[in-house]
Amino acid sequence: MIGARGSVATTAVAGCAAVVAGLHPPTGLATETRPFSQAGLVPLSSLVFGGHDTADCPLPKRAEALAEGGVLPHGMPTAVRAELEAADRAVRPGGPQPGDPRSTEELVDAFAADLTAFRAEHGLARVVVVNVASTEPAPTDGVLPASSLYAAAALRAGCPYANFTPSTGIQHPALAERARASGLPYAGRDGKTGQTLLRSVLGPMFRDRALAVRAWSGANLLGGGDGAALADPAAAAVKNAGKERVLADTLPAVPEGEVHIDDVPALGDWKTAWDHIAFDGFLGTRMVLQTTWQGCDSALAAPLVLDLARLLARAHEAGISGPLGELAFYFKDPDPVRGPKDGATAAPAGLAEQYQLLLGFARRLGAAA
Amino acid sequence: MIGARGSVATTAVAGCAAVVAGLHPPTGLATETRPFSQAGLVPLSSLVFGGHDTADCPLPKRAEALAEGGVLPHGMPTAVRAELEAADRAVRPGGPQPGDPRSTEELVDAFAADLTAFRAEHGLARVVVVNVASTEPAPTDGVLPASSLYAAAALRAGCPYANFTPSTGIQHPALAERARASGLPYAGRDGKTGQTLLRSVLGPMFRDRALAVRAWSGANLLGGGDGAALADPAAAAVKNAGKERVLADTLPAVPEGEVHIDDVPALGDWKTAWDHIAFDGFLGTRMVLQTTWQGCDSALAAPLVLDLARLLARAHEAGISGPLGELAFYFKDPDPVRGPKDGATAAPAGLAEQYQLLLGFARRLGAAA
Amino acid sequence: MIGARGSVATTAVAGCAAVVAGLHPPTGLATETRPFSQAGLVPLSSLVFGGHDTADCPLPKRAEALAEGGVLPHGMPTAVRAELEAADRAVRPGGPQPGDPRSTEELVDAFAADLTAFRAEHGLARVVVVNVASTEPAPTDGVLPASSLYAAAALRAGCPYANFTPSTGIQHPALAERARASGLPYAGRDGKTGQTLLRSVLGPMFRDRALAVRAWSGANLLGGGDGAALADPAAAAVKNAGKERVLADTLPAVPEGEVHIDDVPALGDWKTAWDHIAFDGFLGTRMVLQTTWQGCDSALAAPLVLDLARLLARAHEAGISGPLGELAFYFKDPDPVRGPKDGATAAPAGLAEQYQLLLGFARRLGAAA
Amino acid sequence: MIGARGSVATTAVAGCAAVVAGLHPPTGLATETRPFSQAGLVPLSSLVFGGHDTADCPLPKRAEALAEGGVLPHGMPTAVRAELEAADRAVRPGGPQPGDPRSTEELVDAFAADLTAFRAEHGLARVVVVNVASTEPAPTDGVLPASSLYAAAALRAGCPYANFTPSTGIQHPALAERARASGLPYAGRDGKTGQTLLRSVLGPMFRDRALAVRAWSGANLLGGGDGAALADPAAAAVKNAGKERVLADTLPAVPEGEVHIDDVPALGDWKTAWDHIAFDGFLGTRMVLQTTWQGCDSALAAPLVLDLARLLARAHEAGISGPLGELAFYFKDPDPVRGPKDGATAAPAGLAEQYQLLLGFARRLGAAA
Repeated sequence: MIGARGSVATTAVAGCAAVVAGLHPPTGLATETRPFSQAGLVPLSSLVFGGHDTADCPLPKRAEALAEGGVLPHGMPTAVRAELEAADRAVRPGGPQPGDPRSTEELVDAFAADLTAFRAEHGLARVVVVNVASTEPAPTDGVLPASSLYAAAALRAGCPYANFTPSTGIQHPALAERARASGLPYAGRDGKTGQTLLRSVLGPMFRDRALAVRAWSGANLLGGGDGAALADPAAAAVKNAGKERVLADTLPAVPEGEVHIDDVPALGDWKTAWDHIAFDGFLGTRMVLQTTWQGCDSALAAPLVLDLARLLARAHEAGISGPLGELAFYFKDPDPVRGPKDGATAAPAGLAEQYQLLLGFARRLGAAA
Repeated sequence: MIGARGSVATTAVAGCAAVVAGLHPPTGLATETRPFSQAGLVPLSSLVFGGHDTADCPLPKRAEALAEGGVLPHGMPTAVRAELEAADRAVRPGGPQPGDPRSTEELVDAFAADLTAFRAEHGLARVVVVNVASTEPAPTDGVLPASSLYAAAALRAGCPYANFTPSTGIQHPALAERARASGLPYAGRDGKTGQTLLRSVLGPMFRDRALAVRAWSGANLLGGGDGAALADPAAAAVKNAGKERVLADTLPAVPEGEVHIDDVPALGDWKTAWDHIAFDGFLGTRMVLQTTWQGCDSALAAPLVLDLARLLARAHEAGISGPLGELAFYFKDPDPVRGPKDGATAAPAGLAEQYQLLLGFARRLGAAA
Repeated sequence: MIGARGSVATTAVAGCAAVVAGLHPPTGLATETRPFSQAGLVPLSSLVFGGHDTADCPLPKRAEALAEGGVLPHGMPTAVRAELEAADRAVRPGGPQPGDPRSTEELVDAFAADLTAFRAEHGLARVVVVNVASTEPAPTDGVLPASSLYAAAALRAGCPYANFTPSTGIQHPALAERARASGLPYAGRDGKTGQTLLRSVLGPMFRDRALAVRAWSGANLLGGGDGAALADPAAAAVKNAGKERVLADTLPAVPEGEVHIDDVPALGDWKTAWDHIAFDGFLGTRMVLQTTWQGCDSALAAPLVLDLARLLARAHEAGISGPLGELAFYFKDPDPVRGPKDGATAAPAGLAEQYQLLLGFARRLGAAA
Repeated sequence: MIGARGSVATTAVAGCAAVVAGLHPPTGLATETRPFSQAGLVPLSSLVFGGHDTADCPLPKRAEALAEGGVLPHGMPTAVRAELEAADRAVRPGGPQPGDPRSTEELVDAFAADLTAFRAEHGLARVVVVNVASTEPAPTDGVLPASSLYAAAALRAGCPYANFTPSTGIQHPALAERARASGLPYAGRDGKTGQTLLRSVLGPMFRDRALAVRAWSGANLLGGGDGAALADPAAAAVKNAGKERVLADTLPAVPEGEVHIDDVPALGDWKTAWDHIAFDGFLGTRMVLQTTWQGCDSALAAPLVLDLARLLARAHEAGISGPLGELAFYFKDPDPVRGPKDGATAAPAGLAEQYQLLLGFARRLGAAA
């Protein structure tokens, strides 16, 4: 995991251990539901965690802080301390940090070497790289952003890759040819956890009922590190693009309205998203739907990260390569779906169609040798 | 239409005329969207309206009241006065009213004769009967409720039938054999306009993401006649059963929580539905989604009624008979879907799957001679 | 405290100890704010807790359960274990329980003896009795309900009394003469913690701005024991009367609308209250205010209980007797205010006026010897 | 009225006529309630309307547009057409418009001459100037903004003045001495109609209950001209300052959180304001209050404008001069209150205290000769 000491990563490591130990049911893990039982996925108990981070706070301590904030159940950090410590030992320094003298190539080499060493040290069949770091501002021309350095390292080390953030990652033009040539499966971009998840079912509802959405406005209150990171307007712009894309892709016309992101440290790891949807019914009658979503982003994201790691690992094992639009269920800005004759079409934007696509993918994984 | 002088019927008649005249776009009419353009549906301009009602208030006057309440645009009752008057002339006395000396058979005969006469008088290819009357309390044993008398009359007169209400209608056991033998298509039950429409997309979202819904509570504030009718606990119980069915059918376990229906005359023809959904994420983290839906039921229902009339008319023309689970998109409590080998399976409860089913049905209608 | 092992009592005992120990600021305690600093109130550190309960679960264990549910901070039950144990030792069996052979008089005597013994054992200047037990159904004629038995015992033992519940308590007609003759101060009824607190500021806002409230509807989702107790329609009716009283007392006309109370065990000790207020502005323009209150009742009630105990103790010390309408700030259904010439007028229903009244009372307490 | 052809002014003119004609009750007019009946206010029927505007659209046409948008009842523009036409004839060209060659002095002279001519033409005892124009951006140094030109004209023409907007108006330093010397009463600033009205009762509630507000965040969706005007960040900043002031003035500490204003043309003349208030209860328990206010700003503002005109006219008649903090009830950013010894203190920020202050002022007006 890139950002391996962050809230999402810590929750994923602690939660995987807790589910394996039978302390909690696998809530939020689609891959633990029946339709995925024959897909040949690696069991949760076989997963080994590690990654890169520029932060020093060890995972057990981070987990304590999350328990303090109500994200992890009290007592869990202690119960899964061994697994948190093991993951922490497998975290390598991230970068580049200010003043780092290494060239782009040297950084990519270093990260790739870390990945290879991790695979060798733990005797793993494969390593999946998942980006769960903070959102980057939109990159400036010519410079490969950090998220793309890690993606390049994944390609160099032969690792399947998923980008759970809106950062550039593997989609940087400079990596296009390498990605194509790698024979690796990859997926992205920007995990769909809360407000956008909702939009991906409400948008199709309005569309299929031929109701005319006039304005879709939203407010997002975020505490924790996410709020601080997105208080940067450039990062927020990248984030919002994903939210608006879902509307653009599911509605016949892009409605009026904006989404604001506010940093509200008092909310801790919790997030509140309010949506106000003004729509016209028959004969122009004006109606309104409002939604308020109060969730914990780390708890929403962590099981999706585990799902993605398992699905990509199995896809790699099954020899599937290239961008996996079939994983659109997980993303705000999914890859296109490749057809049998190699033509590509945009992945569906509605969650229900994305879920059908995912089920089909699970069957394909199950059918593979 | 049964209840031909009510809000829904008045809105359907006025709205159809307004859309035909180009005064308004066909918002809310799925059958006017592209996927239905090749289904061979009767054009809106060919529809002729009439029906039964126990009320005396003429449709033009009812339309004025609806315009006063903001359901119809101001000026519309005047603009489509001719069409409202024509429909009003085609309304026959409903029943049975207290003290009516006629037997069940005589009532069914009288209603059937009205339908036949309407068809003859206007030279129509066919008449579709749609129940848009107020919700009945659950029927007592042995007595055929009014909604079923009308259904029996539709069968007798050879008319396709749709039940937009939670009343018994054609689903009374005493009509089962007649319905089967009739060779007519029919559909029901209980139009899905607001809170349940929402539930039919949110339920699958929680299910597919493996999130555990703990409690789903709701409040419904209704003005207008609907509020008064549903202030009767027996009628409300019938109505609520439909709302809870959608949750039972889309979620792995029925959550805690109830729906309350309140009569709030000050709201006029408008309705506000609040839902509070307590769910668990990964590791039992407690999260909440709240929705507030402010809509006008007549404006939501009327285009669905027009859709149903057109789809059933075309099905009849195409020789399709029996319960049409394919129209589940429109109902809270849909009929089962019959498979190719005559086995029947429950219709899907999620809106997206219901929409796919409807699209398939549209293609089937288009393919019929 | 009557109900001394319940959530409110446990939170009051634990919280008082935590604030005294400097573990938490005195949030929610009006009596710890500046205007009360000269009122001569007993310091929190001098309070000693005890009471009656029919339940057996010891306070330390109850506190652990509250910490599990997020009402008390984790670690607090351990930090204040000594104080919880001390309070638990001072809890005497409540009653009457089914099959109790004692007469009304015997019960009152027993409770009064408990109070006297508690005072003597701890060498206290005075004991204030506060009812924080579950809501009783409306009493049937002739039988003195449990809440009134305890009130009679308080009078007999010479204890000031506050009724934080909607139960009858000291307001039973059979106690009127005894209360008058006792020379004791008392106050009630039904603590104002959440939805009604809000109503007591919103009602005056609409009134003072001459806005016409048409309908005020509400839904209350309660977990915990409170939800179960109020699932009994008789108890809920008693509770709702208080909520509606605030509207009746602050608005020029009682609006349409009801409040529903739902038992939703999944919410644990938390409560969600939704209010929908339809009002008319200038020229009848229809507008809507909605509020959603998500709170923890025990945490809202506990500091008010501590405030009341301190204010009543000081009033007793200052020789003030009779019903204290000046404490209307705390109650849904407050006592009348006695004027200088012994005439009584209804206490104000708006929170701001109640607060002014309370400030005046604090000055009066400060001025007393 | 400055902005005499805008929504607020049109609604005030039409509404005053409709109330005088008995077509509507005086909802929203505090001055028509009992406590004001002895204050000697001018009757609504004696009010004569006129003003300045840079817009050309005549009031009757503007009223039709408002009726179309549901702000005025249908039929009202016709019913009060004569009064709308009369007011429209009394509207003089506003300014300065781009390219206007007149100096500041010439503009002030011209506006003052218009006011004097209006008074003479209609034989009025006095003219009250009320600014209901769109919000100006914060002024740049040295230039007198338009709102202050009009204020200067009011002073020159001897007219009482009220500023219903957040613009600078009479509070420009260059006018301070003239205002002091004028002997005229005036009041401001920024009418309190919706979200801030709510905040002015909720803030004191949290304060008086000693609950710790951690974050107060808000979203404002505005259609109509107001939305467009406030889409200008400079104007929005001015507007938001007023909203935040109410929190700063009623809470012990300024909470985290921001207010966003969005222009959503689809909402027409309607406005939706969502507030999310995160607060701590006893022992730091985290709770949340959310409010959603759906109102029509013109209908909320118009009666306040009528109230202000009447109160200022009477104050002028009674020889009261200077800033009237006693009218704080109407404003987000009220003037200070002058004490008997000419010292000035900040007006209270809580609505209830402001209302008490207003009642006292009404008594003072009544007691004046």
